[in-house]
Amino acid sequence: MACVEATDREELLETIRGHLNAPGGPAAGGTAWLERVRSLQPYDFAELLRELHPYEQLALIPLLPRDYAAAALEYLEPVEQYQLLHQLSPDVGSELLLEMSSDVVVDLLLAVHPNQAAKLLGWLPSEYREQIDRLMTFPPNTAGSLAAVDYVAARENWTVDQTLRHIRKVAREAETLSYVYVLDARGRLTGVVSLREIFLADPNARLADVANRDVIAAYALDDQEEAARLLSKYDFVALPVVDDEDRLVGIITVDDVVDVIRDEASEDIQKLGGSQPLTESYFRTPVQDLFRKRVGWLLVLFVAEAYTTTVLKHFETTLSADVALAFFVPLLVGTGGNTGSQTVATLVRALAVHEVTFRDLFRVILREAATGILLGLAMGAAGFVRALIVGVGPHLGVVVATSALFIVIWASLVGAFLPLVLHRLGVDPAVVSGPLIATLVDGTGLFIYFTVARMMLGLH
Amino acid sequence: MACVEATDREELLETIRGHLNAPGGPAAGGTAWLERVRSLQPYDFAELLRELHPYEQLALIPLLPRDYAAAALEYLEPVEQYQLLHQLSPDVGSELLLEMSSDVVVDLLLAVHPNQAAKLLGWLPSEYREQIDRLMTFPPNTAGSLAAVDYVAARENWTVDQTLRHIRKVAREAETLSYVYVLDARGRLTGVVSLREIFLADPNARLADVANRDVIAAYALDDQEEAARLLSKYDFVALPVVDDEDRLVGIITVDDVVDVIRDEASEDIQKLGGSQPLTESYFRTPVQDLFRKRVGWLLVLFVAEAYTTTVLKHFETTLSADVALAFFVPLLVGTGGNTGSQTVATLVRALAVHEVTFRDLFRVILREAATGILLGLAMGAAGFVRALIVGVGPHLGVVVATSALFIVIWASLVGAFLPLVLHRLGVDPAVVSGPLIATLVDGTGLFIYFTVARMMLGLH
Repeated sequence: MACVEATDREELLETIRGHLNAPGGPAAGGTAWLERVRSLQPYDFAELLRELHPYEQLALIPLLPRDYAAAALEYLEPVEQYQLLHQLSPDVGSELLLEMSSDVVVDLLLAVHPNQAAKLLGWLPSEYREQIDRLMTFPPNTAGSLAAVDYVAARENWTVDQTLRHIRKVAREAETLSYVYVLDARGRLTGVVSLREIFLADPNARLADVANRDVIAAYALDDQEEAARLLSKYDFVALPVVDDEDRLVGIITVDDVVDVIRDEASEDIQKLGGSQPLTESYFRTPVQDLFRKRVGWLLVLFVAEAYTTTVLKHFETTLSADVALAFFVPLLVGTGGNTGSQTVATLVRALAVHEVTFRDLFRVILREAATGILLGLAMGAAGFVRALIVGVGPHLGVVVATSALFIVIWASLVGAFLPLVLHRLGVDPAVVSGPLIATLVDGTGLFIYFTVARMMLGLH
Repeated sequence: MACVEATDREELLETIRGHLNAPGGPAAGGTAWLERVRSLQPYDFAELLRELHPYEQLALIPLLPRDYAAAALEYLEPVEQYQLLHQLSPDVGSELLLEMSSDVVVDLLLAVHPNQAAKLLGWLPSEYREQIDRLMTFPPNTAGSLAAVDYVAARENWTVDQTLRHIRKVAREAETLSYVYVLDARGRLTGVVSLREIFLADPNARLADVANRDVIAAYALDDQEEAARLLSKYDFVALPVVDDEDRLVGIITVDDVVDVIRDEASEDIQKLGGSQPLTESYFRTPVQDLFRKRVGWLLVLFVAEAYTTTVLKHFETTLSADVALAFFVPLLVGTGGNTGSQTVATLVRALAVHEVTFRDLFRVILREAATGILLGLAMGAAGFVRALIVGVGPHLGVVVATSALFIVIWASLVGAFLPLVLHRLGVDPAVVSGPLIATLVDGTGLFIYFTVARMMLGLH
């Protein structure tokens, strides 16, 4: 069950190549091999297609049903799609383009040169072309940029039976059959009916009486994250997107939302690691881009960390009086940074999934203070033990322990406070990366350490 | 459009309370208010329900259609579900339980005391009870643990028309109508037909001839992440789950997968922050659990970081010869940690979304080495400038610059190597948190720094 095994795959590739290059033409040995290709999932066929030579791809695609080939093409990158489409005969190419989902077509047209896009657009019937043109106007990362126009729409005055017949008629093109969107005469979205409700309703009932009028929709210029949130909150399979006048622009399907959720998580993880998120996959990102995405934050952190030098220089006499104090500098600032990083990661995620908001600031600070005190006591004990093992004596041990306690509490509070405040100010809290919080508590940690040392050891 | 505004919500709550407590009973003032309640999305109604008193909840629920009330109940926590169900009259309670999705019922039964679960199970017809019993046997985080038995199944020898009539009959109970699962006489899954294909097929065709036999399915004991991966790879709305003998156990729907993807991202983010992931939401996690989830890693990191003390003690004479060397310790180890954290975050995410595998180790190391050299040059220059500003002279400036170069390259390589090797060993690479990589490169960074200093400054 499931998937194409590597060995099957090689054998199938050989079979395809053999038939495509057969002396009597691809159909000479019968079409059983084509049936076998068609029984693959479109995704798996797309993977196979990538391993064929371009001339083999161009020979194979016209032999397959258009809807099947179009479904597979949707899994290729826009540039690969264009390479294939523009080399196929215009009638095959245009049929495939028509069968492809409109959101995929929009991504394709936005990715290629305007002249190339114009050529492909010329293949489409004028009404569809206008719809696509409109979808192309929505900025990236908006709900509108994910929308597809291949939805099932019906009029308020239709009967249930009439609607069901319409669904069957447009089943082939539609992205989802799960919902019928009810429009008034001016194209405004006034209701939604699920296919389930249509099946259960009286065939002679009017759609207006069956439809749910509490429509949940995203506005075209809403952030795509907002659309993803609505769709997953209500467990929908598709979400309608409307313009300012409530006219239906398109629908976003759940597979797009899965991609959005995944991409947002990737962005947060990379930001929390202290890097600007990559816009392409890892291996598609050139080394100079990896460099650019990282060097900015590294330099910012370097400049921020540079004040540790100032703090240490300030305590130069203390340090000269007891060089052993320097031994514990990385250990103490490291522990502070680790504590801050833990707190930040927990809270950035809790903010992202809406478990915590700015209104909870006081509760969060209380919880993190309590946690920080417990952690500080544990780390203080560990610090004391370590100082004894290093052999610097119990006096310095008490200094290290006391400093660890205060540094851990301080790091917990800063790590709790910053993400909530930034979120409140409309800044993505994920910019408070682990490295940033570590940097922020390093200098203050050193200040705590040397102040404690001066007071307890009577140094200057 | 969309959602219930805060003001509407208060007003609606008042209306509901007024009618529930009306002298002549809830229906005294007509049922228009109930229609208004029913027009809410089940999710929004569940939110509203939470704000009513228990006695109000118990009075309201029986007044609503069972399927609507059950859909709303599904959004409550298992404990809240149980509180309501067991206090309602057994006939209302059992009807609601029957209408609820089987995967939600399983979660409910697993969350309550066995005696309570037995009571609820007793309300179910015996055949359904057996199915639920079986679903309850799958361990947490397996594909089987997410499965629901409310699917549409058909026999191979049915006609398309017969199948369509069957779909309409079971529409009310089914989790999704998008797919019909084709079973043989022994309950084995032999094919899948989409509703779209059924609409487009000849009504007299046999299901066996229309069904797709290249079935993509998860095994019940597969990790839930594997199921999520399959479902999102193929852009399905639901994925069948089978046992070892290919018998259909249930289906996983895309809304479950959205939750899995979100939870896995949360886990990775918390691990990368250096904490054990929380199993509950932030505010449901008691402070002692926040402490426990963090203290383990903090102590491990402390012990690992403790060797920085040893390194510094080893270089005590060098340090005493020029105390100014200590000024740059936090800056250099911090920069190393930041670089490592950036690389780790990028690669852990690339591994999680399958952009990178262990086979790419060599390519990854090459790319990260190149990036590391560029970053090292930038940070070396910054280090030199900083040393001049602090006023420690150009000699120490060159030492700081050279050390920064090597430390950054070293951190890039370790940050690239570790996640891939751990992934290969079957360990979740997200355990290589930012704090862990920072800790690992801190001691080696100090060693690099003091070795460079000794050589360049002629110290001992």
